[in-house]
Amino acid sequence: MRTISENKCFGGVQGVYAHPSEATGCEMTFGLFLPAEAAQGPVPVLWYLSGLTCTHENAMTKAGAQKWAAEAGIALVFPDTSPRGEGVANDPAYDLGQGAGFYVNATQDPWAPHFKMWDYVAEELPRIVTAAFDIDEDRQAITGHSMGGHGALTLAMRLPGRFRSVSAFAPIANPTASDWGRKQFTAYLGADEGKWLDHDATHLMRELGFDGEVLIDQGASDQFLDLLRPEALSQAMAARRQPGTFRMQAGYDHSYFFVSTFIPDHIAFHAEALWR
Amino acid sequence: MRTISENKCFGGVQGVYAHPSEATGCEMTFGLFLPAEAAQGPVPVLWYLSGLTCTHENAMTKAGAQKWAAEAGIALVFPDTSPRGEGVANDPAYDLGQGAGFYVNATQDPWAPHFKMWDYVAEELPRIVTAAFDIDEDRQAITGHSMGGHGALTLAMRLPGRFRSVSAFAPIANPTASDWGRKQFTAYLGADEGKWLDHDATHLMRELGFDGEVLIDQGASDQFLDLLRPEALSQAMAARRQPGTFRMQAGYDHSYFFVSTFIPDHIAFHAEALWR
Repeated sequence: MRTISENKCFGGVQGVYAHPSEATGCEMTFGLFLPAEAAQGPVPVLWYLSGLTCTHENAMTKAGAQKWAAEAGIALVFPDTSPRGEGVANDPAYDLGQGAGFYVNATQDPWAPHFKMWDYVAEELPRIVTAAFDIDEDRQAITGHSMGGHGALTLAMRLPGRFRSVSAFAPIANPTASDWGRKQFTAYLGADEGKWLDHDATHLMRELGFDGEVLIDQGASDQFLDLLRPEALSQAMAARRQPGTFRMQAGYDHSYFFVSTFIPDHIAFHAEALWR
Repeated sequence: MRTISENKCFGGVQGVYAHPSEATGCEMTFGLFLPAEAAQGPVPVLWYLSGLTCTHENAMTKAGAQKWAAEAGIALVFPDTSPRGEGVANDPAYDLGQGAGFYVNATQDPWAPHFKMWDYVAEELPRIVTAAFDIDEDRQAITGHSMGGHGALTLAMRLPGRFRSVSAFAPIANPTASDWGRKQFTAYLGADEGKWLDHDATHLMRELGFDGEVLIDQGASDQFLDLLRPEALSQAMAARRQPGTFRMQAGYDHSYFFVSTFIPDHIAFHAEALWR
C-alpha cells in the first residue's frame, strides 16, 4: 500500500492510499479519515459508499463529514466506485463501467475480469484497512449516496452482524425496477433477473431486513426520483416493521449540498450505535 | 360553556370544560391546556385527537404533553371522541358508537342524529375555543393517536391552510382497507365505498398530500399493526414526495407509554412550525 497524501484535518488525519487489489485485479485508491482518538487505540468506523461518476474523492472533499466524525471519534472510509485503469473495461455512458460498479461481482464479459466491487468493499478493503490502521472491526457502520446508498443497504442486509447501523442518502432503492439497475445488472450479472435480487435493497428489506436501526434521507426535489424509487423502499421498511426512520426532505435535490446538510444527523445516528 | 375543573400545571392551567354542541346535539366535554404565555396574548394551539375508547381525559392525563407544551408556549386541546349521553346511539363493541366517532359525519341511522364528529372538531369546537380563550387561530397544528391519528391526518389534508403541521402516533392509516374502518364507515357512511375515501389518510395522501411537514411515529411491536396498515401510508408519503418523517420505533406498542415517549419530539416538531 502506498500513501498518496495525508492532511491534518479536525485534529485527525485525512489520508488517501492506493493498493494492488486481488478482487479487482488493478490498483485501487481509497480515502480514510482517522480521528485524533485513533492514536490511543482502535476507533469505530463508518464506511461511505459513493454514487455514479464518483471516485474516492468526492465525498471526502464535499460531504463535510470529517468535522462530525472527529467530534464522534469515528473513522471514515471512502472507497472508489469501480476498478479503473488501462485494461479495465469501460463504456461511454456515465452509468456503466468505470465509476459505476454498482457494488456487484460481474459475471458477464467484458466486465467479469475486474468488476468485483462486492468482494472489494465487503471483504478485501475491510481486511486491508483493519490490518493497516487502528480500526475496531467489531464496531462498523455504513452509509452511502445514490448508487452508494444502494451499496450500503445491500451490504448491511446481506452481511448480518457486520454493521451496527446503516443509513443512506437518496439511495437507488429498487434497482431491479429502475433504469438505474436493470441496464447495469443485465450487463454485469446477465439477463436472469433472479440473480439481481441480492442487489435490490427493497427486495432485501422485504426478505431479510436489517438487525439494527436504519436511517434514510431523500430529497423531495431530487431530479432522479423516478430512478431512485424511494416509495418502494419506504413501503418495504414499514411492512417489515423495520426499526428506523425514513425522511422526505422538502426542497433538497440529489447533490452534495443535500448530503452535507444531513451528514451531521447521519454521523450522530451511527455514533449512537457505534459507541453503545 | 361551564367549567368542570381548572388545575395549575407547568405554570399554566389545565382546564376541562363542557358545552352544548349544535353539531352533535348533546353536551360535549373537552380538555384545554393554556401555557402561562396565554396571559400576555394569543398563543398557538396543538389539537390532540384521541383513539378508540378514549374521552377528552386519556391524553390529558397520560401523554405527558403539558410539560413540553408549556416549554414551547403552546396550548393543547383534547376533544372527546364521540357524542355521549342519553338518547345517543351506541353499540356493545368498543370500536363502534360512543368512544368511536372516527371523526366523520354519520349519514346512516341510528348514528346520523348525533355522530357529526367531523363538523364538531373541524368547525364548532375551533370556533368555541378561539372565542373563549386566548388562542391564535392563525397558528394551529394537529396530532393524534390511533383513531385520533386518522382524524388528525384527514383533517389536516382536507382543510388546507388550517394547520401548519400534522403528526400522528400509530394512526389508523388506511381504514378503507382495514377492519378498523370498513366496519365503522359502513355503519356511519353506508355501503358506498366511494364516500369513505375522504376519510382515508392513505388515499388523501395520494390525492392531496399536506402543505407542510408530516411526522409519523409507529411502534414496531404495536399489537394492532395489521389494522393500522402503516406501510400503506408510508408508501403513499414517499410516492407523493411528501415532506416529512416516518419513524418505525423498535419495541414500542400501541399504549400511552409509546405516546408519552415520543410526545416531546412531536411538540418540538409542531413548535418549530407554529413559531416560525
